[in-house]
Amino acid sequence: MDGGGNQPHVVIIGGGFGGLYAAKALKRAPVRITLLDRRNHHVFQPLLYQVATAALAAPDIAAPIRKILRRQRNVTVMLANADSIDAPGKRVVLSDGEIHFDYLIVAAGAMHSYFGHDAWAEFAPGLKSIDDAFDIRRRVLIAYEKAERETDAQRRKELLTFVVVGGGPTGVELAGALAEIARNTLTRDFRNVDPQSARVVLLDAGDRLLTPYLPRLSQSAQRQLEGLGVQVVTGARVTAIDAMGVSIGPERIQAATVLWAAGVQSNPLGQSLGVPMDRAGRVQVEPDLSIPGHSNVFVIGDMAAVKWRDGMVPGVAPAAMQMGRFAARAIFARVTGRTLEPFSYVDKGSLATIGRSRAVAQFGKWGFSGIVAWSFWLWLHIFFLIGFRNRMVVLMEWFWAYLTFQRSARIILDDPHARIKPK
Amino acid sequence: MDGGGNQPHVVIIGGGFGGLYAAKALKRAPVRITLLDRRNHHVFQPLLYQVATAALAAPDIAAPIRKILRRQRNVTVMLANADSIDAPGKRVVLSDGEIHFDYLIVAAGAMHSYFGHDAWAEFAPGLKSIDDAFDIRRRVLIAYEKAERETDAQRRKELLTFVVVGGGPTGVELAGALAEIARNTLTRDFRNVDPQSARVVLLDAGDRLLTPYLPRLSQSAQRQLEGLGVQVVTGARVTAIDAMGVSIGPERIQAATVLWAAGVQSNPLGQSLGVPMDRAGRVQVEPDLSIPGHSNVFVIGDMAAVKWRDGMVPGVAPAAMQMGRFAARAIFARVTGRTLEPFSYVDKGSLATIGRSRAVAQFGKWGFSGIVAWSFWLWLHIFFLIGFRNRMVVLMEWFWAYLTFQRSARIILDDPHARIKPK
Repeated sequence: MDGGGNQPHVVIIGGGFGGLYAAKALKRAPVRITLLDRRNHHVFQPLLYQVATAALAAPDIAAPIRKILRRQRNVTVMLANADSIDAPGKRVVLSDGEIHFDYLIVAAGAMHSYFGHDAWAEFAPGLKSIDDAFDIRRRVLIAYEKAERETDAQRRKELLTFVVVGGGPTGVELAGALAEIARNTLTRDFRNVDPQSARVVLLDAGDRLLTPYLPRLSQSAQRQLEGLGVQVVTGARVTAIDAMGVSIGPERIQAATVLWAAGVQSNPLGQSLGVPMDRAGRVQVEPDLSIPGHSNVFVIGDMAAVKWRDGMVPGVAPAAMQMGRFAARAIFARVTGRTLEPFSYVDKGSLATIGRSRAVAQFGKWGFSGIVAWSFWLWLHIFFLIGFRNRMVVLMEWFWAYLTFQRSARIILDDPHARIKPK
Repeated sequence: MDGGGNQPHVVIIGGGFGGLYAAKALKRAPVRITLLDRRNHHVFQPLLYQVATAALAAPDIAAPIRKILRRQRNVTVMLANADSIDAPGKRVVLSDGEIHFDYLIVAAGAMHSYFGHDAWAEFAPGLKSIDDAFDIRRRVLIAYEKAERETDAQRRKELLTFVVVGGGPTGVELAGALAEIARNTLTRDFRNVDPQSARVVLLDAGDRLLTPYLPRLSQSAQRQLEGLGVQVVTGARVTAIDAMGVSIGPERIQAATVLWAAGVQSNPLGQSLGVPMDRAGRVQVEPDLSIPGHSNVFVIGDMAAVKWRDGMVPGVAPAAMQMGRFAARAIFARVTGRTLEPFSYVDKGSLATIGRSRAVAQFGKWGFSGIVAWSFWLWLHIFFLIGFRNRMVVLMEWFWAYLTFQRSARIILDDPHARIKPK
């Protein structure tokens, strides 16, 4: 499978923003590229919460990786699962074989972290993949369905309580969308319950939401969420999660639906590299994003710990794109005998959306919120969505949703949970 | 749950075409209605094959039943699974409770029938639900992914062989779409295999495809399929299906993907009624669609055996809609003390699509094929799609697909099959 040509073989693990931008940046490089991913599709992560909250269909924000790269003839896309990396042996061990490389770009991303409480995963799903999004969509819609049939008032209240743990961008987006579903989308659909009576709680352990933002934007985000009816609780350190709700020390919130947006950790694939990692499992890379001792192996995106100002480069899509492009340029330079300046992250600003006409935006010391930030968010995300067709469909969906307050993807898919079971 | 008002309580089991049209036709009737379905969504079945073949996203052809009926205040929609019907006791036994009725409309549809070979189900999925469609989509896309990585020529050939069993409308549609995927959609996406070398075989036990159609339309359908590269084999009685392919007596087709479109049987719920059924498990109803001995219980759609001309009313969407409306009118008449003529089926004609600009259509003795039939098919399906939003999106998807030959929903969702496993 490695045959054909004497050109150096570049293997990229992961078809997220980092891996995809690395592959694209190697378009004119004299190399053969193999991009492998255990899923067949790239996901536009910033809009994943809209699939979870039934506003968009999965294909609106996901595209087959091989379709995105179909015209780039030096790339072979492979559906495969990388189990470990043998850096000295220059090979990646797959679940069903192995693949040799001259250069390797590791861009396998991050996964949820429950901070050692893995038992919480069952009760509080996180949001990283399309399948996670379908799981969340199913839980939220099923909660309303069960509430409609529930005769016990206390239990009905629990079914209509939704708790989001974690006040970062994903938590803020999920909480905002859940509040809009309750207030706008479902208003006329039920006969026995009033969706507007649903309670949405957003918990954060810190002293304010969206900690990397300016304090006044955090306050604005909280006000905008409260305007939608979300109950924001800061300084709330979760101590237990089970099927019936969440405990915060002695306090208890009874809730049938709990969503986890509190923490991520690096893909454990990094462990097989045998180099120093930080607490979140990220690999401490050299200034050129390669790993100590193996200058032909690069780690990028959410898997890389890269110093920036007095902290680290954040785990956001633009950072992954920049690192992907940089790793590609580093390989191009190496292959053609040139050298390169170290990687330096360029902060393009931050945006977090809360709901219809509600968002916050920060560019350096400059921040704004409300409908201006929201329009900015909307056009930027449309612009970066992969593929013209998706852009058109998403724009149309949003226009339609804006007019009607509807969500077009309220489909519960099959699952053990999807059918009402005997009690 | 049955409280509120002295109006007669009409329970409808099933939110397909029959149940939905029955509920709508009772809009102005002095009754309380409960519509129950074990899924939260109505599926526009005639376009389900497009979800299976990655041309449309699930929400394009499915809508929440409670959203469709949200403005009809005399309907309560309930997510519930009906286990059996106690006609003398006037109650439906649910998986998790029971519900009493004054009138009952049973519209739970049909499921695949493997003619006693239930073991085939694992290897040859049928197409009745959104989840079935995702399963088929996954199998087809995974076959190409595996072929791209396969080094053994014989095995690669098997991975690129797709067999559809059954030459009715669904089989014809699936075979045509599979051929278009191979010929048009995937052409540039792979490096190691040529999707155009894929083989699509359509098997039918009878002497021609689309038996209810005029013989010359059956021939036209076969020619149009062959024009797409589909190998049509009539008189092919399948004797075995396993993970490696299909046997037709002593003959063998090695194929990694086999799809089942050969037969349906009525939902087994009909058995609990204790009345005569035909061989396909359909209930033999009275001329007013009620069951013998219980004039307040109606069975409609794919579950009802209704005589028509020298055969039976076919199991198609227009028949289910007509029966749904009739059962509603019958109840309305009964409640208001009037009587009704017996049900009579009006044949609105038949359409089967084969692919881009390829279809056959029959209206009485009048039949035509090719692009005229296809345009007719297209506009009719757009017209009947539930909800303005879906119509617009589907029209746009089709327009885009027509221009680009692309399919926008090539997303493989999580499943044991979705990840490459150790061999």
